[in-house]
Amino acid sequence: MSERLPARTLEATLTWVGWAPGKDFVSTAADRLRLTYAGIQGDLHAGLTRPSGAREPWYPRGTEMKNERQLSIVSVEDNAEVAAALGIPDLRPEWIGGNLLLSGVPNLSLLPPRSILFFPSGATIRIDGDNGPCRQAGRAVAAQFPGRPDLEFAFVKAAKYKRGLVGWVEREGEIVPGDTVKIRVWEQALYPG
Amino acid sequence: MSERLPARTLEATLTWVGWAPGKDFVSTAADRLRLTYAGIQGDLHAGLTRPSGAREPWYPRGTEMKNERQLSIVSVEDNAEVAAALGIPDLRPEWIGGNLLLSGVPNLSLLPPRSILFFPSGATIRIDGDNGPCRQAGRAVAAQFPGRPDLEFAFVKAAKYKRGLVGWVEREGEIVPGDTVKIRVWEQALYPG
Repeated sequence: MSERLPARTLEATLTWVGWAPGKDFVSTAADRLRLTYAGIQGDLHAGLTRPSGAREPWYPRGTEMKNERQLSIVSVEDNAEVAAALGIPDLRPEWIGGNLLLSGVPNLSLLPPRSILFFPSGATIRIDGDNGPCRQAGRAVAAQFPGRPDLEFAFVKAAKYKRGLVGWVEREGEIVPGDTVKIRVWEQALYPG
Repeated sequence: MSERLPARTLEATLTWVGWAPGKDFVSTAADRLRLTYAGIQGDLHAGLTRPSGAREPWYPRGTEMKNERQLSIVSVEDNAEVAAALGIPDLRPEWIGGNLLLSGVPNLSLLPPRSILFFPSGATIRIDGDNGPCRQAGRAVAAQFPGRPDLEFAFVKAAKYKRGLVGWVEREGEIVPGDTVKIRVWEQALYPG
């Protein structure tokens, strides 16, 4: 059997939360978020199901499917690396539609699928996996920097493996900036085929 | 960055389906299964949510949580290996509460979390991950072989990494024995920490 890494627990801090109450993908800071089984109530990405899109080319566009992408979880560290690569002073979570901004975990975007985030209220989030950077987010970044239309495409390239995670609510509850977040990473192995 | 394995598509055959219509964990063969967002309608493990159990020691027993364990997916190959290790002629999917029996994919139990199973009807299943073998299944195996009470514990040991997968319905539809199943395995890497 190939290499197996043992299960472990990491710790992060929730430094910011945001949501998208309207049709705009860009998010807005909030004081706290109430997580339900459908995600963030009233949020653009809320729903027990969602219509499929460009990320699921195997479904006809708009096919109803279970919503495994309720939340966008990004990190201070990954965002800083992307900003540096793009030559911009900052990459704000709002611009890329983030809902949770974590700090303290390196390479957050590479956390394995199935990992669980535990919050003090009892709320938990199950990680579906890494979020592939798209041009929509790239355009939102470029819109912040007049004279840098190149950022639309440059973001997609620079944010690969650094664009955070998507996930869904496993247990309902509230999350608040300042929360300590425990992260369970299961035993890992590559599928040997 | 550590080793990354590219995304790939595997193919399996669905050779048998079963469900548990009552309170008994042991499953019963069916002609076909109708998969809904809550799992198999009327099945013991159906539900958009479920009460937590011994597998989630971090929750008080009976805590409501999203149900990521709607379906038990086992394989001819893994079952044969477990049977050989236990010195029994066969390990039937019913005994261990299986819902889908696949053939044609080696090491099915090691398929990575987030993998997707595609069925001809359009139904899809998202893999949560490997299923840890438990004594409940061990007892059901032992019950088949009078004089082998040791199988209760031996199963738990022999079936590690060979007890199949659990998952949830991503897209509704029917599945029928004989179906060809395409399996999408995403790009893989171990979390570097």
